[in-house]
Amino acid sequence: MDYIFSNKISSLQPSAIREILKATSDPAVIPLAAGNPAPEAFPVEEVQQLAKEILAEKPIDALQYGVSEGYQPLRETVSGWLKNHENIGKDFDTTLIVSGATQVMDLVTKVLCNEGDTVICEEPSFIGSLNCFRSYGCKLKGVPVEADGMDVNALEEVLKTSENVKFIYTIPNFQNPSGATMSLEKREKLYSLAKEYGVMILEDNPYGDLRVSGTPLPTIKSMDDDGIVIYAGSFSKILAPGLRVAYCVAPQRIAAKMTVGKQASDTHTACLNQMIVDGWFKNYDIDAHLNKIRKVYERKLNLMCDCIDRELGDFVEYVRPEGGLFIWCRLPDSVNMPEFVKKAVDRKVAVVPGSAFLIDDTDETQYIRLNFSTPSDEGIINGVKILGEVAKEYK
Amino acid sequence: MDYIFSNKISSLQPSAIREILKATSDPAVIPLAAGNPAPEAFPVEEVQQLAKEILAEKPIDALQYGVSEGYQPLRETVSGWLKNHENIGKDFDTTLIVSGATQVMDLVTKVLCNEGDTVICEEPSFIGSLNCFRSYGCKLKGVPVEADGMDVNALEEVLKTSENVKFIYTIPNFQNPSGATMSLEKREKLYSLAKEYGVMILEDNPYGDLRVSGTPLPTIKSMDDDGIVIYAGSFSKILAPGLRVAYCVAPQRIAAKMTVGKQASDTHTACLNQMIVDGWFKNYDIDAHLNKIRKVYERKLNLMCDCIDRELGDFVEYVRPEGGLFIWCRLPDSVNMPEFVKKAVDRKVAVVPGSAFLIDDTDETQYIRLNFSTPSDEGIINGVKILGEVAKEYK
Repeated sequence: MDYIFSNKISSLQPSAIREILKATSDPAVIPLAAGNPAPEAFPVEEVQQLAKEILAEKPIDALQYGVSEGYQPLRETVSGWLKNHENIGKDFDTTLIVSGATQVMDLVTKVLCNEGDTVICEEPSFIGSLNCFRSYGCKLKGVPVEADGMDVNALEEVLKTSENVKFIYTIPNFQNPSGATMSLEKREKLYSLAKEYGVMILEDNPYGDLRVSGTPLPTIKSMDDDGIVIYAGSFSKILAPGLRVAYCVAPQRIAAKMTVGKQASDTHTACLNQMIVDGWFKNYDIDAHLNKIRKVYERKLNLMCDCIDRELGDFVEYVRPEGGLFIWCRLPDSVNMPEFVKKAVDRKVAVVPGSAFLIDDTDETQYIRLNFSTPSDEGIINGVKILGEVAKEYK
Repeated sequence: MDYIFSNKISSLQPSAIREILKATSDPAVIPLAAGNPAPEAFPVEEVQQLAKEILAEKPIDALQYGVSEGYQPLRETVSGWLKNHENIGKDFDTTLIVSGATQVMDLVTKVLCNEGDTVICEEPSFIGSLNCFRSYGCKLKGVPVEADGMDVNALEEVLKTSENVKFIYTIPNFQNPSGATMSLEKREKLYSLAKEYGVMILEDNPYGDLRVSGTPLPTIKSMDDDGIVIYAGSFSKILAPGLRVAYCVAPQRIAAKMTVGKQASDTHTACLNQMIVDGWFKNYDIDAHLNKIRKVYERKLNLMCDCIDRELGDFVEYVRPEGGLFIWCRLPDSVNMPEFVKKAVDRKVAVVPGSAFLIDDTDETQYIRLNFSTPSDEGIINGVKILGEVAKEYK
């Protein structure tokens, strides 16, 4: 049969990162292309203990259908934690539990956007979110990311000249892929521009707790007196992504529509998994865990930067990020970026071509994204060394 | 702020069933409105053992990111089981693992339908699926359900007179809510009509393994020589819904697009949960389990029918289903159905008004849906008794 696909899905390619991830299931390939949290940061013993207790004490709650809003005790746990931890959550807000933070992007787009509406995003930005917006037939308009975050002057220009803008998508902390963190001044300016132009902000903060240097900055959601910010957070980077538990904080009227959307898309998030996360908060010292995993990430980030400085110091340019999972490296103008990536893969080192993070991935860019959380220390050392050998071919 | 929602979400109401479910979290209400599998049918000890072993032996596989297609060993396990069990799966097919069967409906609609396209469905039909189709801005066209399934003459008329029909949605076994099972002749006719008119079939079979009487019939997917059937199955009714693990079998080209859609909507299904299901198949006797739970459902189905015959025998009409979870009861013409439902809820018995399952839920119907899997035996007996008391008010 000659299948005819919807316009929105026809325009969508498989995520370059996920496709590369599949290619790198070959254990001989050094995975600098992934975005997996460091497995040594998973609280394995705690999850073992929690799963055992939950399935012994409340098996039916864990195995029966739940409600679309999420497991009520976890909703309350997360609300309380966000209030203390980030000063997030006004009286008009509510917290929903979802199946990974990508589902927040999915539900927000479903709820706010008709086909052809515009979403403003940082450029470069996380390919998973861009593909989500594309999967609803949205137009994407990009705003360049500078060392201190989104170029707010360019943002204002885009807001002035675009029609049917429904929201601005931003990853303010250790942005994927650029690693950039938005300054406080820009966060305030972004908020005031969104308010002035009557558009929502979708603040995606998966890496916020992985800060290894510098001073924490307030989230944009913490400034939200007007009910214009939807905040997405996740347990994928601080607990374990395989559980697929994330959350959002949104004004109640929006959250109610997102709940209806979630009913129609996956009914609810797995109960056992939500109970594991809730039990983790109630039985363990989360701050101590975060301090512990930050040390893991600090060590790996510094190791990779040291390796880059040693092996590629006279070849690539990059800004050392204050946290997150990624180093965004600019190759010399004389180098053909896709060719460099191909040569690296041929030598069994996977990196992501920067074009994957652009709105039009046929645009040219000199950047590649390196990840330091997935590989072992040895993988970081050897992987960057091999990139250095590839670089020598261009000298 | 004055929020403006997308057209597709604005037209969507919260699922009446899920809203009623929330109302019935009051333990004093007898839950004849739900569709939960019987908790006594959950293999609790098996899941306890499997979770323990998986988290001890393969904790990183269980907690790290996975691929969007699903956990490869489970994909193979399910493919093999479906081939043996239902003769499902041609060379052109592939199996995907998803987060509950509703996600199959979601991804199929995302992949095949533009806004304004038509989906043909049985009427009445499962509200969750109808809301899913609505959430993509699809037009719904209904085909009446008879005692032996979809009226195929009416189907042909709808196919002849409708534009941009993308697929026909059917629940052939123990349909929700009607309990009807489609005859073999109608399955064959449905297949040949879909082929003739060039539209896909979305076959949803969550209850197929819950047959308690009569003779099993071949699935429509087992007749699929032309690659026009997408088959949705679930572990929610035979293992546990709280795990949120389901699957679909679709022609590879369609499955590839669904995978891209899933990447953009929830990345992948929880790994621990998929590994539990895979371990369940590999370590336990599934056929013995199915025989055991069929006995549970047979007893509860017969108990409810006996209660209805005794308490409501001269009041409602119904066809005894051969399996599934639901009894579809017709109230006398003289009775105001919504008023009857209201009186039942006032007496702490929740049932679903049949209008919830219609394409236009303001249409009138005399039906109510009763569920026998969620309540205890005592709940069935007392619940139907109270409905009998409400009925007396109309005599």
